[in-house]
Amino acid sequence: MDPTQCETHPSRYKHWKLTVDGDTAKLVMDVDAEHPHRPGYELKLNSYDLSVDIELADAIQRLRFEHPEVKAVVVTAELDKVFCSGANIYMLGLSTHSFKVNFCKFTNETRLYLEDASANSGLGSLAACKGTTAGGGYELALACDETVLVDDGNSAVSFPETPLLAVLPGTGGLTRLVDKRKVRRDRADVFCTTAEGIKGKRAKDWGLVEDVVSRSKWDETIATRAKALASKQTVTRGPAVQLPELGAKITDKAFSYRYVELAIDRATRTAALTVKAPEGAPTDLTSADTWSLRAFRELDDALLRLRFDLPDIGMVTVRTVGDRANVIAHDEALAKATTGFAREVRHLQRRVLKRYDNTARSFYAVADRTDSCFAGVLLELALGADRFYMLLDGDEKIGVQTSVANQGFFTMSTGLSRLEARFYGDAGNVQKILARGADGLIPSEEAEKIGIATVAADDIDFEDELRIAVEERASLSPDALTGMEQSLRFVGPETLETKIFGRLSAWQNWIFTRANSTGEHGALTLYGQPERPQFQWKRT
Amino acid sequence: MDPTQCETHPSRYKHWKLTVDGDTAKLVMDVDAEHPHRPGYELKLNSYDLSVDIELADAIQRLRFEHPEVKAVVVTAELDKVFCSGANIYMLGLSTHSFKVNFCKFTNETRLYLEDASANSGLGSLAACKGTTAGGGYELALACDETVLVDDGNSAVSFPETPLLAVLPGTGGLTRLVDKRKVRRDRADVFCTTAEGIKGKRAKDWGLVEDVVSRSKWDETIATRAKALASKQTVTRGPAVQLPELGAKITDKAFSYRYVELAIDRATRTAALTVKAPEGAPTDLTSADTWSLRAFRELDDALLRLRFDLPDIGMVTVRTVGDRANVIAHDEALAKATTGFAREVRHLQRRVLKRYDNTARSFYAVADRTDSCFAGVLLELALGADRFYMLLDGDEKIGVQTSVANQGFFTMSTGLSRLEARFYGDAGNVQKILARGADGLIPSEEAEKIGIATVAADDIDFEDELRIAVEERASLSPDALTGMEQSLRFVGPETLETKIFGRLSAWQNWIFTRANSTGEHGALTLYGQPERPQFQWKRT
Repeated sequence: MDPTQCETHPSRYKHWKLTVDGDTAKLVMDVDAEHPHRPGYELKLNSYDLSVDIELADAIQRLRFEHPEVKAVVVTAELDKVFCSGANIYMLGLSTHSFKVNFCKFTNETRLYLEDASANSGLGSLAACKGTTAGGGYELALACDETVLVDDGNSAVSFPETPLLAVLPGTGGLTRLVDKRKVRRDRADVFCTTAEGIKGKRAKDWGLVEDVVSRSKWDETIATRAKALASKQTVTRGPAVQLPELGAKITDKAFSYRYVELAIDRATRTAALTVKAPEGAPTDLTSADTWSLRAFRELDDALLRLRFDLPDIGMVTVRTVGDRANVIAHDEALAKATTGFAREVRHLQRRVLKRYDNTARSFYAVADRTDSCFAGVLLELALGADRFYMLLDGDEKIGVQTSVANQGFFTMSTGLSRLEARFYGDAGNVQKILARGADGLIPSEEAEKIGIATVAADDIDFEDELRIAVEERASLSPDALTGMEQSLRFVGPETLETKIFGRLSAWQNWIFTRANSTGEHGALTLYGQPERPQFQWKRT
Repeated sequence: MDPTQCETHPSRYKHWKLTVDGDTAKLVMDVDAEHPHRPGYELKLNSYDLSVDIELADAIQRLRFEHPEVKAVVVTAELDKVFCSGANIYMLGLSTHSFKVNFCKFTNETRLYLEDASANSGLGSLAACKGTTAGGGYELALACDETVLVDDGNSAVSFPETPLLAVLPGTGGLTRLVDKRKVRRDRADVFCTTAEGIKGKRAKDWGLVEDVVSRSKWDETIATRAKALASKQTVTRGPAVQLPELGAKITDKAFSYRYVELAIDRATRTAALTVKAPEGAPTDLTSADTWSLRAFRELDDALLRLRFDLPDIGMVTVRTVGDRANVIAHDEALAKATTGFAREVRHLQRRVLKRYDNTARSFYAVADRTDSCFAGVLLELALGADRFYMLLDGDEKIGVQTSVANQGFFTMSTGLSRLEARFYGDAGNVQKILARGADGLIPSEEAEKIGIATVAADDIDFEDELRIAVEERASLSPDALTGMEQSLRFVGPETLETKIFGRLSAWQNWIFTRANSTGEHGALTLYGQPERPQFQWKRT
């Protein structure tokens, strides 16, 4: 199977058209039915699959970096009677469980990027839904700041998943309906079980959309609303920086980038992730090649490839290599910089680290070389890992160091920093560690003592201890590990984000395994066929 | 199959011994291996099944009502080398998915009752673990205020679920470990993948237990700690009230109690739940027969029977009948009463209403008779239902009314009242409705207008509309409905409780459906057999 290509560019989009006009942009969904992500189904009626979502994620990213003048984006469609009919059902029917789950996770992340861009980067979003807005189509609209539906006696927003497919509006839909839009729960119940959806005035009265507008007033209203949304933004981005291709070298043995490498050992079902520190202090903070941006874009790409193309690799060691002083210099330069671009880079780093938290693989961070550099933003990789193994070296050259990057900006989806999550309920200790870490290297022995390292061992024991730990982990049930890591990683408060990834996704994953949806006679399996689904009636 | 008997009494316990000595009680687990809930397995090594948990729930309840003098309960075991080895694996292997999930849910509720008794009723709990404390056994200990482990070089606390059984410590274990006990997440990761567990000083250092104590000092230390725990309590219960048997009449057609009836229609897979109002104003507020206690104990019993014995019944209509003034009189008398008993009754009502929220059945509340009485605490049943159908009558005799019971005491597991959840994010409206509702009956038409009723229809349409809604609901996939309701019902903040029921349980349910645990070669299936499990390695 060809490797998943997560990089794209507007010039190569097949499913979206991105145009910019002053401070507003238009992102038009015009899915090319003939170009699905994998052969075997057609993307009719603006239904989407992974390839459509990869382009959407790219477009949001480029708007943030390459079009800082844009303050509002209108997400709309080219078709006259369909905004978007949701995830392609035939694609779901043909997919493995593992792919379905990872596809939904990526879609969830992309929707959250829309909200993140609005909350943090002065990029508002307006879903202009002229026609059917169904399932994942309405979920996309829910991720925008505002949704306007055409009022033509026909067009409706709908969640037909439960009544027609026996699954959930699982890409954030259920959660956003009640938690974000605050639709009354009994109305949400009616809405989610009414396949044909809700249209017109009622859609507005129930809070499902901001407004319903006739076709005659459509263009004018959307333009006015987009302008108003743009004028509300208070965050300034820029200067504009073009995002170059990363040019990953993909072989059967490794994914290689400038700063990131993922080496694959298929026999042991493990991989080794290595992130290199910058070569020097930052010189040009407005370059797309600046380490903080480049390395984290590479890490992002590697994580997505790991998820989609290496399902059998369950255990990943994480190492960093290079001069930690350079990592910290980059962290500090970024934090001090007053440009919108610098802020965007930090936001991107934050999103990539969240992607790491949400990747269903066991991560063991390993500091076993004297040029290991778990410092600043790279320390987050150790704090976010399931365990952290450190070698005790006599010279105390191996250690960790904190920087401004660990002081709270890089929140997890819970809203806690990774240090706060590690020492949940003990804010005093977090402050103590930050004070100590800013003072210089914390050697392995001390790092274990203060709770940064899980294990610190000397060179007599280290190699064996790590080897056995990795082998043991790789021998455990991947499903149980996913459920376990999902519970232990996200300690503390729940947010819209964690509710989507934890509660909603977990229920959807369960439902995807049930005969009533994906069995021989399940509703998802039989969609589009004359045969009616047959349900097993036991309530669970 | 015999109906599930959820009522019991200490005189009939087979698996626990409850003794009271002054202000402390002892609850000794001494599971009778020969008396499992269903034939087919033995309850060796203080492993538990539903029958063991039903007795535990009964004991906690009786301590609250019948032994108000008890301020601390020591949960311990009779065996010398085993505190509790967790849920019986052979029982799980023999159970349907639906039973497994409902068993875990009941166990979760029972553990939460321990925490509720401590938080609200001055009944502290101490797990005194002399010997192996494994899996569900340690989860039980985690639900207590304190855990003391014997330090004999052998006894350990452990979560062997993931390494040995390919499932989760899903009865609150993972959540309590990091969120309640605040065990560091990387240590929790090590602990949860180390089948033999952690003992001695390390168990204490990691925060897995409060203390480790040698066998020679065991009895004295436990007694001292129990006394100290008792002396810390500030809430007074009482007077003591004995809880009589409810004497449900169970037939194939209905579960009938004094105030509650669940009528079953197997052909349509629906049931009709009816709760009767009290016959008059409260006369004796220290009687176990007082309506507020009796009716809610009956409702609790009916809900449990519905869960365990009617898995095919997915749709339940909920009606109330009687004089709403009497309901409100009881609510007010309880709220005004200063006795600990009155407070206990309200806490019991709150727990039963939470059980209702957490019951995986569709509930439609129906007010279609002039003696319908969705008032006060019974209004919570309508607010907690997925929908509320009200008949418009010309005389405006049908309506709802609020009381002190709707003002915030009856929180859901999210911490929100059901009115707050219904109007999430609109506290002003909640206040308006409470002010209006205290003023007298809110007729159906107005109830719909202000958002209490989902649908109000006149007698020309009502019957058809309700009939179609019920039929439609009963035709949908039960799995999708469970996932949908779990997402829509629990709008708003997440708490330890909702994390356990939503996040953790959902992952566990998913894992229970996966071949790696319950398939032919799954670890749970093969437990205790010579054959090694064979895993499918795809990470999801």
